[in-house]
Amino acid sequence: MAGPYSREDLRELSALAKLYWLSELKDEELEKMLPEVDCLFVHFWPSSLDSERVRKMKKLSFVQSGLAGVNHIPFSEMGEDVVVCSNAGGYSDEVGEFAWALIMAASKGIVKSYRGVGEGHTWAPLELGKKIVVLRGKVLGILGYGGIGRSIARIGKGLGVKVMALTRKGTTEEGVITVSGDDGLKRILSESDVVVLALPLNNSTRGLIGREELSLMKKNAILANVARAEIIDERAIYDHLSENKDFIYATDVWWMRDGKEEYPPKLPFFEFENFIGTPHVAGPSAIVGGGPMRNAVENLLRHLMGEKVKNVIDRSEYTN
Amino acid sequence: MAGPYSREDLRELSALAKLYWLSELKDEELEKMLPEVDCLFVHFWPSSLDSERVRKMKKLSFVQSGLAGVNHIPFSEMGEDVVVCSNAGGYSDEVGEFAWALIMAASKGIVKSYRGVGEGHTWAPLELGKKIVVLRGKVLGILGYGGIGRSIARIGKGLGVKVMALTRKGTTEEGVITVSGDDGLKRILSESDVVVLALPLNNSTRGLIGREELSLMKKNAILANVARAEIIDERAIYDHLSENKDFIYATDVWWMRDGKEEYPPKLPFFEFENFIGTPHVAGPSAIVGGGPMRNAVENLLRHLMGEKVKNVIDRSEYTN
Repeated sequence: MAGPYSREDLRELSALAKLYWLSELKDEELEKMLPEVDCLFVHFWPSSLDSERVRKMKKLSFVQSGLAGVNHIPFSEMGEDVVVCSNAGGYSDEVGEFAWALIMAASKGIVKSYRGVGEGHTWAPLELGKKIVVLRGKVLGILGYGGIGRSIARIGKGLGVKVMALTRKGTTEEGVITVSGDDGLKRILSESDVVVLALPLNNSTRGLIGREELSLMKKNAILANVARAEIIDERAIYDHLSENKDFIYATDVWWMRDGKEEYPPKLPFFEFENFIGTPHVAGPSAIVGGGPMRNAVENLLRHLMGEKVKNVIDRSEYTN
Repeated sequence: MAGPYSREDLRELSALAKLYWLSELKDEELEKMLPEVDCLFVHFWPSSLDSERVRKMKKLSFVQSGLAGVNHIPFSEMGEDVVVCSNAGGYSDEVGEFAWALIMAASKGIVKSYRGVGEGHTWAPLELGKKIVVLRGKVLGILGYGGIGRSIARIGKGLGVKVMALTRKGTTEEGVITVSGDDGLKRILSESDVVVLALPLNNSTRGLIGREELSLMKKNAILANVARAEIIDERAIYDHLSENKDFIYATDVWWMRDGKEEYPPKLPFFEFENFIGTPHVAGPSAIVGGGPMRNAVENLLRHLMGEKVKNVIDRSEYTN
């Protein structure tokens, strides 16, 4: 286990289970304990829990992720009866806000003009004004309409954007146009002025946005990513930014290299004026407030008390 | 006259008045015309209309400003019966959005972390998370509750902030705590996590935010300015940023030097990580859309048709 838990969380968990912290266990202690482990609470999957050790956890029945995404979990190495739950909903407000910070920085040219002013550039006001995107009345497409997507939509309503959302579940909500399937995706990509990714990374979303999808988008669209980098094809977005100077990609997430997000990435995205990147901070901004851990612990408590748990993952979406 | 008018604007004005463009008049033509001028439509007050020329406009009865602020108009040189109208309301949506872009860039550390990532810095996620301000539930204080202030409040409701506004007019609105006077100002400054300036610059607001006022604010507050720089004492905010590294000033407006806004300013604000500055682009982002000119032309048309005009300025607020 790792992360900032409240005393209350730990007290409640301790009343129902014996708690061990992976980081505090010596190798031999861990080895000895593996056959007895019932539940795991993991943030990012620890490298010390390799395939061999996972196979030794014969009693393992429940894995609770502290992260909203579960793409880090080695499903194929765990027994099929192990229930894995995501931490969906734990990060909604904070990541939704962060998505808007990226969208607004992109639409208002904040990073670019800040640098310019500091370096002594001056501009003709109207020339500069033409580069600013006024969001009110524009179309915002949200890919993924879970907790984070809905938080993004709520903020968008205050800004007066027209919200369109891609959802598998056919959710409907007042003031939001929901679409689904391939046709829905194509419609959102072609009609939106701003597209934001709020999807889990799994079999059906990996590489979802490639050359063809980017080509459907408006030439001056903004694409914001607070989900996972791998939903977008790295080379495709790099080339698209290079060829379409009015298109902006603003991201808080990065492609994985050797088991961790690589930033700055090898491809020189930071040479582009139409790129904004931040160091995967949206989730941490939520964690320090305690909300996500509370949300995950509540689900683990449900499991320990034999209640129905939330956010159970369909592992077929994560295995081949 | 100057700026992007629609054909419709010009057609309607031409039907009621003979139009001349200052930039197209030779000096001798202008001199000859001055005694006959009834109305002026000005954007930023032109240097060619100096005191002597203003005094020669004996028939001048009406001045329409294209800008929302009228602090650029030489009131003391015009006859007391000249009616001057601001363009209040013309910029509300766009400047309100821009205020939020500054607030969100400040609260989420977008500029700072973008630079860091590009330069290859890495951070411990939770350390970085602690530096992020989550806006939901925080108190937003708006100084000045006209069109721009109300637009900022509307967006704030979507973000779930508690809105407090300083207003002279005692306006009330659902979900907004309105306060007024010196006590109201002190209350807003001391209780707000984010304070945004949306006031006109006039006799009662010049230097409104000085050392004493800054000292009332939270040590980790964000102060955003989309109004006029001179509402804040330049040296006081510089020293405050220097001494309070968790306090952020984010501004689109700059102190005037030799008749124009100076950026970057002489005081080295850009050396501070807790400063964000953009080149006065919020207004221009509105002008290119045509809305502000339409708003101002409609008021001028009211005057020309003998109807009651809007946004008449009380010149005692702008003269000594």
